Amino acid sequence: MPSDITRSVERPSGPDPARLDSGLLSPVWADAPVVDAVCDGAWLQAMLDAEAALSRAQARIGTVPEAAARVITESARVENLDLVALAGQTRQSANPVVALVREFTAVVARRDPDAAAYVHRGSTSQDILDTATVLVARRALRLIRGDLARVAQSLAVLAEAHKDTLMPGRTLALHAVPTTFGVKAAGWRHLVLDALAKLERLDGAALVVQLGGAAGTLAGYLEHADGADPAVYVQRLTEAFADELSLSAPLVPWHVLRTPVVDVAAAAAFTCGAVGKIAVDVLSQTRTEVAEVHEPAPAGRGASSAMPHKRNPVLAAAVRSAALQAPQLAATVLGCMLTEDERSAGAWHAEWEPLRALLRLAGGAAHQTVELVSHLSVDTGRMRANAEITGGQIVSERVLAVLAPHLGKAPARDLLNEASARSAHTGESLAVVLRRDERVSALLADDRHKDLFEAECYTGAAGALTERALSRSGPAA
Amino acid sequence: MPSDITRSVERPSGPDPARLDSGLLSPVWADAPVVDAVCDGAWLQAMLDAEAALSRAQARIGTVPEAAARVITESARVENLDLVALAGQTRQSANPVVALVREFTAVVARRDPDAAAYVHRGSTSQDILDTATVLVARRALRLIRGDLARVAQSLAVLAEAHKDTLMPGRTLALHAVPTTFGVKAAGWRHLVLDALAKLERLDGAALVVQLGGAAGTLAGYLEHADGADPAVYVQRLTEAFADELSLSAPLVPWHVLRTPVVDVAAAAAFTCGAVGKIAVDVLSQTRTEVAEVHEPAPAGRGASSAMPHKRNPVLAAAVRSAALQAPQLAATVLGCMLTEDERSAGAWHAEWEPLRALLRLAGGAAHQTVELVSHLSVDTGRMRANAEITGGQIVSERVLAVLAPHLGKAPARDLLNEASARSAHTGESLAVVLRRDERVSALLADDRHKDLFEAECYTGAAGALTERALSRSGPAA
Amino acid sequence: MPSDITRSVERPSGPDPARLDSGLLSPVWADAPVVDAVCDGAWLQAMLDAEAALSRAQARIGTVPEAAARVITESARVENLDLVALAGQTRQSANPVVALVREFTAVVARRDPDAAAYVHRGSTSQDILDTATVLVARRALRLIRGDLARVAQSLAVLAEAHKDTLMPGRTLALHAVPTTFGVKAAGWRHLVLDALAKLERLDGAALVVQLGGAAGTLAGYLEHADGADPAVYVQRLTEAFADELSLSAPLVPWHVLRTPVVDVAAAAAFTCGAVGKIAVDVLSQTRTEVAEVHEPAPAGRGASSAMPHKRNPVLAAAVRSAALQAPQLAATVLGCMLTEDERSAGAWHAEWEPLRALLRLAGGAAHQTVELVSHLSVDTGRMRANAEITGGQIVSERVLAVLAPHLGKAPARDLLNEASARSAHTGESLAVVLRRDERVSALLADDRHKDLFEAECYTGAAGALTERALSRSGPAA
Amino acid sequence: MPSDITRSVERPSGPDPARLDSGLLSPVWADAPVVDAVCDGAWLQAMLDAEAALSRAQARIGTVPEAAARVITESARVENLDLVALAGQTRQSANPVVALVREFTAVVARRDPDAAAYVHRGSTSQDILDTATVLVARRALRLIRGDLARVAQSLAVLAEAHKDTLMPGRTLALHAVPTTFGVKAAGWRHLVLDALAKLERLDGAALVVQLGGAAGTLAGYLEHADGADPAVYVQRLTEAFADELSLSAPLVPWHVLRTPVVDVAAAAAFTCGAVGKIAVDVLSQTRTEVAEVHEPAPAGRGASSAMPHKRNPVLAAAVRSAALQAPQLAATVLGCMLTEDERSAGAWHAEWEPLRALLRLAGGAAHQTVELVSHLSVDTGRMRANAEITGGQIVSERVLAVLAPHLGKAPARDLLNEASARSAHTGESLAVVLRRDERVSALLADDRHKDLFEAECYTGAAGALTERALSRSGPAA
Repeated sequence: MPSDITRSVERPSGPDPARLDSGLLSPVWADAPVVDAVCDGAWLQAMLDAEAALSRAQARIGTVPEAAARVITESARVENLDLVALAGQTRQSANPVVALVREFTAVVARRDPDAAAYVHRGSTSQDILDTATVLVARRALRLIRGDLARVAQSLAVLAEAHKDTLMPGRTLALHAVPTTFGVKAAGWRHLVLDALAKLERLDGAALVVQLGGAAGTLAGYLEHADGADPAVYVQRLTEAFADELSLSAPLVPWHVLRTPVVDVAAAAAFTCGAVGKIAVDVLSQTRTEVAEVHEPAPAGRGASSAMPHKRNPVLAAAVRSAALQAPQLAATVLGCMLTEDERSAGAWHAEWEPLRALLRLAGGAAHQTVELVSHLSVDTGRMRANAEITGGQIVSERVLAVLAPHLGKAPARDLLNEASARSAHTGESLAVVLRRDERVSALLADDRHKDLFEAECYTGAAGALTERALSRSGPAA
Repeated sequence: MPSDITRSVERPSGPDPARLDSGLLSPVWADAPVVDAVCDGAWLQAMLDAEAALSRAQARIGTVPEAAARVITESARVENLDLVALAGQTRQSANPVVALVREFTAVVARRDPDAAAYVHRGSTSQDILDTATVLVARRALRLIRGDLARVAQSLAVLAEAHKDTLMPGRTLALHAVPTTFGVKAAGWRHLVLDALAKLERLDGAALVVQLGGAAGTLAGYLEHADGADPAVYVQRLTEAFADELSLSAPLVPWHVLRTPVVDVAAAAAFTCGAVGKIAVDVLSQTRTEVAEVHEPAPAGRGASSAMPHKRNPVLAAAVRSAALQAPQLAATVLGCMLTEDERSAGAWHAEWEPLRALLRLAGGAAHQTVELVSHLSVDTGRMRANAEITGGQIVSERVLAVLAPHLGKAPARDLLNEASARSAHTGESLAVVLRRDERVSALLADDRHKDLFEAECYTGAAGALTERALSRSGPAA
Repeated sequence: MPSDITRSVERPSGPDPARLDSGLLSPVWADAPVVDAVCDGAWLQAMLDAEAALSRAQARIGTVPEAAARVITESARVENLDLVALAGQTRQSANPVVALVREFTAVVARRDPDAAAYVHRGSTSQDILDTATVLVARRALRLIRGDLARVAQSLAVLAEAHKDTLMPGRTLALHAVPTTFGVKAAGWRHLVLDALAKLERLDGAALVVQLGGAAGTLAGYLEHADGADPAVYVQRLTEAFADELSLSAPLVPWHVLRTPVVDVAAAAAFTCGAVGKIAVDVLSQTRTEVAEVHEPAPAGRGASSAMPHKRNPVLAAAVRSAALQAPQLAATVLGCMLTEDERSAGAWHAEWEPLRALLRLAGGAAHQTVELVSHLSVDTGRMRANAEITGGQIVSERVLAVLAPHLGKAPARDLLNEASARSAHTGESLAVVLRRDERVSALLADDRHKDLFEAECYTGAAGALTERALSRSGPAA
Repeated sequence: MPSDITRSVERPSGPDPARLDSGLLSPVWADAPVVDAVCDGAWLQAMLDAEAALSRAQARIGTVPEAAARVITESARVENLDLVALAGQTRQSANPVVALVREFTAVVARRDPDAAAYVHRGSTSQDILDTATVLVARRALRLIRGDLARVAQSLAVLAEAHKDTLMPGRTLALHAVPTTFGVKAAGWRHLVLDALAKLERLDGAALVVQLGGAAGTLAGYLEHADGADPAVYVQRLTEAFADELSLSAPLVPWHVLRTPVVDVAAAAAFTCGAVGKIAVDVLSQTRTEVAEVHEPAPAGRGASSAMPHKRNPVLAAAVRSAALQAPQLAATVLGCMLTEDERSAGAWHAEWEPLRALLRLAGGAAHQTVELVSHLSVDTGRMRANAEITGGQIVSERVLAVLAPHLGKAPARDLLNEASARSAHTGESLAVVLRRDERVSALLADDRHKDLFEAECYTGAAGALTERALSRSGPAA
């Protein structure tokens, strides 16, 4: 029997699972829409879209026949190519475009031999791949923006609903002073809007075509321009190319000035961090002893393979797992700014997978967060009860402020230190312990201090801050 | 003798070198102005500035006596405190502010016991430290911006001067097609302007005070506000605090919404990448066999401890060393967005050193780059000579464009493949080899192709792109 | 007044705080012994030790006069040099050794002009700096090992003492099944021993001198060897050099084969992760609602600047902050393996600071963990009480195992799902809810199941595993 | 036409490309054997292998019927399950095992309803997934070791062949002193052997099964052990489980003590760095102006989409791209050591993809390096010629050693500085320039110095070091 097993370990069979990346190891994006947007097929289609747009742009300027551009465009569909075969050839040239151009030219030639001569005319691998990357990023970013907008809307509802929901504020793992769940949710929304703002800023001038030719001078394109003025021609060509793809035209080629790619990576990583903050808070409040919030748990969700009682916070765990991976991937993309000469031998190539991984993680995390926050179950009774478990220590800051003017700041602090310790030890409330001190007892008798130990009377400006945070306009519905 | 040595290994002596971080291991910033801006002393002064500004802000609103705020402000000087002793106490509370408040209160009390009661009134460690961080960052960012502006100006001069300086464009380590040094320098400037734009964007609304109190509700401040309306009071207090420090007021406290810190880290890391790109190009062109550029070498610069002939490109090496470290530091700061609850037990604390390191690296790298580019020695003769060492292969793309219509694309490519290989093998020029082919020879006889093999005739739109890049307005002088 | 402030922001004064790195921003190492071991002064002394050892090694072989080696050794003390001035010159050569050699030669010359000629004889900056790095690392690693050994010993005591201390096992933030605090502490120890094993492995052949000369051929040293056989001479010289410093001799120079440095970085980062795991567990169990453990809190420890009741888990927070920074620093060192040619222009230089930072973080984190675990306060009553707050759901896995054979696996699971939900909802115990089902009630009447719902009866092999883990021998006391 | 395009951008069609990860964006591993070893299908099969081995282990001890274990084993084949459907369900439980157990139980039940009750008996998701991860890692590591062994063997041949091949040693981008290509290749091999040693160390006790049950106590397994002694039973079960999979048994469960996973990640990242060092050197020596080595270029390899003359160093570029990504992925795995409680909500999940990515990058990079070094074309003539292009400056260190005793160290250095500058400026050889100085001329007349300026006479111990490096025994053939 062992030998059987060994064999099965050595040779997995079935329908070419080697080439599948199904998300089996990525709960955060396994079933998210972003997968379709950034898969190999989408990237290949984007490269074909770039090739087609280039031919149409040249046609608009008159350096490629309209008919050829039409055939090229009609042929530029991923189903006309063998993706896996193409991928197998990327090693030959360290990028997928060389083989793509060869195979795509053949596809076009079968329709129209004359048109084939105009495929990839004057172009270079990087123009096609970089532009395709931007196209893919745009699709992914739009999905992410849609999901973040939904997250922000749900959080607005949550913040509004819980504006007055008392809960313990926690710092360094311990109860600090009271706060409200509303101001927490409003803060989450604020951070999500920060992420959205970064994503929105990207969708303007930042999503640019790349057009530079073999080393950034566009000489190859100009060679086919029949003596046109270089300044005019490259400007017109770049703008036409951008227009065909509804992207922007960059001021100059960015083959080795990687701002567009770095900006996408940074925004995706920030997005993971923003929803990751929500996830770690949900996890903190979900803990069995805390039990203030619960993830939505439709049938089958959060089940354990062993323990029937569990409803694991699986969405939050998955979102957190994305946020733990993203910063290091962004670091890799940032590191690839050190791209030597007019194209790096390696630093360009090292960008692609981390960028895709970032888009996939951000897309998955944003998507899971939509469900996480839109159906989050909030136990307001438990929040209030938790706020009271320290027997009033949670308002010790306030008590200090009251006592200090009378006892002196340091003596008051010492007194409270001791009383807190005693309260924690005996289980008596802080008020009971403190009233044993005569001076304190006298002071507290004052009617102004009758609610001094009520947690709900010490939430500061939580309500006002919630409203203030909600006044920040979110994305259009 | 060995025992002596062992002893000296074990107990370094001298004037407390343990507490010095002199830059011995950091050539990139050892002598840069940014060191003063981000050192422990600067950070401590910034915390004192925050404490003082807080008391003045409260004085403006009437919750702290003017006189007390004045004494607090006058006392708030780093020389009144023992920095090293303070630092030694940070472990007790995992942040430097608790001990600072105690010691600073004592300093104030010595001047005016009444004023001492108003130190840190209603406040919390994080408000002071986060605001101090922003103050420190502002100083560092301004230094960086100043240096980047100088870099951009020098690069404009360089690009202008070398608009027509022919050099080989290089991709994947090999000569690709001709380009100019002007368009390369203009590209460097473009990237530096991207970095500057990010830094400038930071210096508006992004540099905000933090004011939230113990858990973000500002309850502690309100406790001293004598029944003021919370919404109005916290708004006024925040604005007054910001105004005192010439910072912006945030919409809401950001104690656990770390956008301001992440944005500073990202901009600093991007800056390192931008000047790092220049450095790797300078290193590539400095190589002994290439020798196209040389670092400025005043007496003593770039010397080796062994080899008298060397003039090492030490500025570029140092700048690159910064760019190799920055992305991972930025990743750490980004990862700290996962700050649980109302203050993290660890994620807040993990931000401080990486952020300082980033500011120091960016400040040092920008500073070294000023000198690197402003006195870069450019050997235009060598650039031109290098452009010719492939015997014309560098224009093979152009030759292909000429031959393809006559021979067919694939046959033309095959012919050029072979001819290039032969040229590389025999040392004959590509033109000589190609002319052995009768069809080619006939074609090339055409007068239109008389400059076909001249590298300087195939720089495409390099000149136009240089001008276009230079049209982007740089920072005000 | 604002202008005053602005001024004070701009020009911090006092005793050159710019050059201090006092640990103000690093609670985890501010007061740890490792600071002395890795500071600039220590590194400079280590470089001097390397220079001195080199001269003695050459003296042993007869290529430097004994007297010269003696003077060089006697002069090689950090107090003879101006550290800050030296640091200021590192930029000139992108490393500190060039200036060091110049200044140190002058120091030696003042004692004995003849001896000065033998300083740094045949050597190169990298031999000195790399060897110094290994010396510094050795000192730091020994401190770390000492602290980890103490941690392991305390954990053994803790694990032994709490072998039978019931507590809830927690997975994905929720109670899973019961466990013991003993097996948890034993697991912590196991991980710490893994770290120790990595550190111990380093202290054998891995701590090697570097000796290669300008480009790894030792030609410079041989030039002074008066015709000696190269193979014999370089071997003897390397071994003598290693012997003088009690380091190992490498098989070949490692100037561009960076295994020794990467191994130190990896071990330091692993150490941070190992104690970081303890820290996150302590933080989890410290939470106000959980309250199972408390950090040692001598007077003044863990105080908040605002809230007198708090005893913040500051050691755990500081340790965690180190563990959040270390992986990315290790990544930088790992990335510097890509050191081109015979010495990199930048990748060598980018190693130094991250390596020091790693040693400092690991040294600080290990040091704080000694105190954290040796005086950790464990509330066994609270652990037991927490194990019971789910009303028996914590043993649902066991109940399922009992019911499944009788009801079928799936129906039993469904029944338990529902009963758990009801129990959670109503607050009734799981047993009470289940017994309403007749079949279950009949089953549970069986005497074999009388302790079925007792958490303490379902700790599996926790006791055995604790003993097993403790059987792994720790470091010698 | 634009609208068509937009449509094709939005909805890629074809045979579900969304689920393919074909390597289109990963030249370094697109066609490498490691892809099969670490794909989703392989991971799923490994999980099934773990389930089957668990049932057989239980059967060996008598707690599962032999017949059931046989059916479970026979059913445990990836082709019996729908991989993509399973992956789509991972989100429901944040790991793939819960759905796998459900579907696999149904598969077994169809063969034998009685056997189905024994699937995953007493187990938990993590035991299955962690053990599967180790199985997958073992397969990948063996492939990597095989390839590294081949690399080491080729490098031994290369080093031997070029023991006396003179070339310029380069530091900080400039010629430093002469060296040989042999000692460089021997150094590469040494680093590869370091990587191999790390991989070999892993393949002993480090490749361990994970068996801990729901929270590390194995209580679930014991519940089915019919009163067996826990210590004995869990030990026997763990050993039997390990034996069935030819893995080792760990001392204790490592569900939250992540050494095994961290060690695999670290070794894979180190491997990338080791072959990455070779790649950056190859790239440096491939540069057009240097041209000392050339990648193997079978037909079609290294072609550009634009320039027919290019033979891009695509293997080296791809290998370098892997080495640029690996350190940050390793940092993520290292960071996941901070796994709270008895299973983390997120830190466990964040390990999987980075670990796979590391194995894939290391596997691809090692595989490409086999071809890179086994057919590397070395131009010894060019190496020698390059060594002479500085007109003798490359031996300035040696000349200094000769002149210093006569002129004094500092004057000799000044003289050489000036002479080198003049030589570089005028193109005269250093010897010619120096001989204009009378003292030098007299000195150099000495017959002992007749070969002073010959680069090949100043390679130090390069030959001896090559032999020494080659004396390190490599892996068995």
